[in-house]
Amino acid sequence: MKIIVVSHGDFAKGLINSAQMLVGEQEELRAYGIYPTEDRSILSDKIEKILSNKKDGEEILILSDIFHGTPFNVCVEMMENYEFYHLTGINLPLMVEILLQRSAGSNVFQISKKVMQEASNTIKDVTQLIKGAD
Amino acid sequence: MKIIVVSHGDFAKGLINSAQMLVGEQEELRAYGIYPTEDRSILSDKIEKILSNKKDGEEILILSDIFHGTPFNVCVEMMENYEFYHLTGINLPLMVEILLQRSAGSNVFQISKKVMQEASNTIKDVTQLIKGAD
Repeated sequence: MKIIVVSHGDFAKGLINSAQMLVGEQEELRAYGIYPTEDRSILSDKIEKILSNKKDGEEILILSDIFHGTPFNVCVEMMENYEFYHLTGINLPLMVEILLQRSAGSNVFQISKKVMQEASNTIKDVTQLIKGAD
Repeated sequence: MKIIVVSHGDFAKGLINSAQMLVGEQEELRAYGIYPTEDRSILSDKIEKILSNKKDGEEILILSDIFHGTPFNVCVEMMENYEFYHLTGINLPLMVEILLQRSAGSNVFQISKKVMQEASNTIKDVTQLIKGAD
């Protein structure tokens, strides 16, 4: 399975840098950002190059930074012509979970299901948890 | 309100870079990473410097990358001696929401409540949404 993280600016690169600090260096993991001076075609060309070279039976999982952002929209347009799986709004705990699940041999459907099950539990109000403030 | 994002590696810096691409450059927003060769005291010293200079009535919101990670633990230890609010597992949509809410004049309790209400809705299975695959 290939994993591609796409974002505005440096989020995607920061996310895979931090995830690899936690679970070790990973293969088939790429991060692409789109920057203010760039046309969106720079990002779409990079993604399309990977999607058009997809081998039979190979799985591709794309993770975008934010619903309805430009990287998200670029990926949604690609869904018309290419087969891949797409999740959006990923944080570091879910990125780590995705990489661990891939290493354990889970397929893209199993990984996506697990991500959606665990999503809300990865975001916590620590002050509330520890001090019970209200 | 001061906002501090802390993470393993580059996640925190990437997150605020991307958020500012979406909502414009922000004041009182800092990002600190902890790196493999560094002792955790490098991170805790940076945070403590800000917390110990907190003015009366000033609010501080710390966002950490992952529950039970080192940056998270450093912040939890600080909660014993300093007053600030702490959320963990933040993604880009929530970072944007936090910055917009701060600009609109919300306080740290209102922001934290809103983040927890919206958290699960910021992470989506786009393939399921668009193609209804299952």
